[in-house]
Amino acid sequence: MPVQGSIEKYRVNKKGKINLSDYSTNDKSLFGHGGKEDSYPFLDQLRDELQALQTLLYAESKRRVLVVIQAMDTGGKDGTVKSVFSRVDPQGIHVESFKKPSEEELAHDFLWRMHQKVPRNGQIVVFNRSYYEDIVAVRVKKLFPESVWRPRYRHIVEFERMLVEEGTTIIKLFLHISKDEQKMRLQSRLDNPAKHWKFNPDDLKDRAKWEEFEKVYEDVIEKTGSKYAPWHIIPADRKWYRNLVVARIMVDTLKGLDMKFPISDWLAEDIVID
Amino acid sequence: MPVQGSIEKYRVNKKGKINLSDYSTNDKSLFGHGGKEDSYPFLDQLRDELQALQTLLYAESKRRVLVVIQAMDTGGKDGTVKSVFSRVDPQGIHVESFKKPSEEELAHDFLWRMHQKVPRNGQIVVFNRSYYEDIVAVRVKKLFPESVWRPRYRHIVEFERMLVEEGTTIIKLFLHISKDEQKMRLQSRLDNPAKHWKFNPDDLKDRAKWEEFEKVYEDVIEKTGSKYAPWHIIPADRKWYRNLVVARIMVDTLKGLDMKFPISDWLAEDIVID
Repeated sequence: MPVQGSIEKYRVNKKGKINLSDYSTNDKSLFGHGGKEDSYPFLDQLRDELQALQTLLYAESKRRVLVVIQAMDTGGKDGTVKSVFSRVDPQGIHVESFKKPSEEELAHDFLWRMHQKVPRNGQIVVFNRSYYEDIVAVRVKKLFPESVWRPRYRHIVEFERMLVEEGTTIIKLFLHISKDEQKMRLQSRLDNPAKHWKFNPDDLKDRAKWEEFEKVYEDVIEKTGSKYAPWHIIPADRKWYRNLVVARIMVDTLKGLDMKFPISDWLAEDIVID
Repeated sequence: MPVQGSIEKYRVNKKGKINLSDYSTNDKSLFGHGGKEDSYPFLDQLRDELQALQTLLYAESKRRVLVVIQAMDTGGKDGTVKSVFSRVDPQGIHVESFKKPSEEELAHDFLWRMHQKVPRNGQIVVFNRSYYEDIVAVRVKKLFPESVWRPRYRHIVEFERMLVEEGTTIIKLFLHISKDEQKMRLQSRLDNPAKHWKFNPDDLKDRAKWEEFEKVYEDVIEKTGSKYAPWHIIPADRKWYRNLVVARIMVDTLKGLDMKFPISDWLAEDIVID
C-alpha cells in the first residue's frame, strides 16, 4: 500500500548536526514504483480523510492544530496548502501568510503578530512562513545583529513548548527542494507571462545566497526541533509526492489525537420548539 | 527629601521563600514624618516628571514599557492607575483590564489574549490584572488541575524574558493591603450607594480564601521574580503613599532607560513647502 508505515523517515528525531545534503529532495520511496498519475486517487483519499478529521476536530473543539511551513523560494508553500487542504471546510482552516513585517509589527517583539494568529479550539491554522523567518531571513540578510537573532532560538522553542503544553499540536514542515529544481521553477515563471506576478527579481539575490540559507536552515532545524514540535524535511522536488507526504502527515497526526464527538447534556425529546 | 533613595526596599531581589507577613502593608518610611496632605505636592511633581518622560519615550519610540499590577480585591489597582498616570497623554498610555476570559480567549493558550496587548515602541501599557491570574485565580478557585497551572510558572518567566530581551521594560507591582484594610474598604463600598457598583458578593467568597490567596501570591512572587522582571511589593493600606511609591518607581525606571530625542536626517532649511 502506498504512502504507508514509514512517514517517520521524514521526521527529524535525532539529536545533533543536520546536513540537508543527507536528505534527498526527490525521494519517492514511500510510493514504490508509482508515479504522478498513479498518485491522484491516493491523494484524493487522504483529502477525504482530512476533511472528515477536521470536522471532528471542529465538533470536539478541544484541540488546536498549527502547521508551520518553511521553504526556500519556489519551494512550494502555496502549492502544498492549495493541494492538501483543498477539501477542508474553509471555516475550519485558516492560512496566515506572514510577509515582511509592517512598521506596527516591528514595533513589537517578533512573536507578537504570530501569536495573534495561532489556532483556537477546533481550528487548523497554517503559517505560510512564520517566526522562523525572524531567524532565517534576519541572519542571511543581516537585518539585525546576532544579539537580536541569537536569543530567538530559545524564544521559539519556549513559545512552541507553551503552545503545546496549553493544548496545541504543532506540525513543522520544511519543503526541501534542490538548487536545480529552483532554477527550473524560476525559469518557468519567466517563460510563462501568466506566472510573471510570482517572479520577484529579489528572489535572485536570495538564490545567490542559497548555501547560506541552507546552513541557517540546518542550524534552525537542529536547534528548534523537539519531541513536542518536531520538524519534517519533506522531499519536495516532485510536487505530487510532496503533497502525498504532507497529506499523510496531517491525517496521521489528526488520527493520533484520538478525538471524540461530544456527548450532549440534553435529550432531544425534552426540547420543544414552539 | 521625601520619597528618595531607597525605593529598592520594595523591590524583591532576594532569592528564596517570600512571606508577605514580612512586608508591611502600612509602611511610609520613605516619607519620614510626612502625612497625606504633605504628600500632594510631591505626587504632583512626580506626575509632571512622568508626563515629560512619557513624551520622550514616545518621541524616541525605541522602548516599550509594560506595567503589571496585581492585588487582592480592593487592593487599589484602579485607583493607582487613575492617580499615577492622570497627567500622561492618553495616546501614550494604554490600560488593559483583563476580566474573566471569554469563550474565544479560553479556546487559546492563556498568554494569547495578553500578548496581543503588550506595548509597542514608545508606549506604556498597564495590565490591570494579567496572566498572573491564570495561576493565582486558577489555583485558589481550583478552576483547572495542577497539570494546567504548574507549567505556567515557566511559561510566564520565559514569556517575560522574551519580552525583555526583545526590548520591553517590565515593572511588576503587587499592591499589598492587610485583611483589615480590605474589610474597611468593602464596608465603605456597602455604606455608600454610589459605590455599590464596585461591590460584588463574590468578593466575599474570595475574602474567605484570603490566606490561600496570600500563599499562592507568595509562591508566584518567589518563582516569577527575576532580575529582568522584578516584583515590587508596595505597602498599599495608605493610598497616598502607595501612589507616591508607584509614581516614583515609574519615574526612576523611565529615567534609567537613558532615552534621547531622535536626531533627524534632514535639514529644515532644505525643505521647501510649495
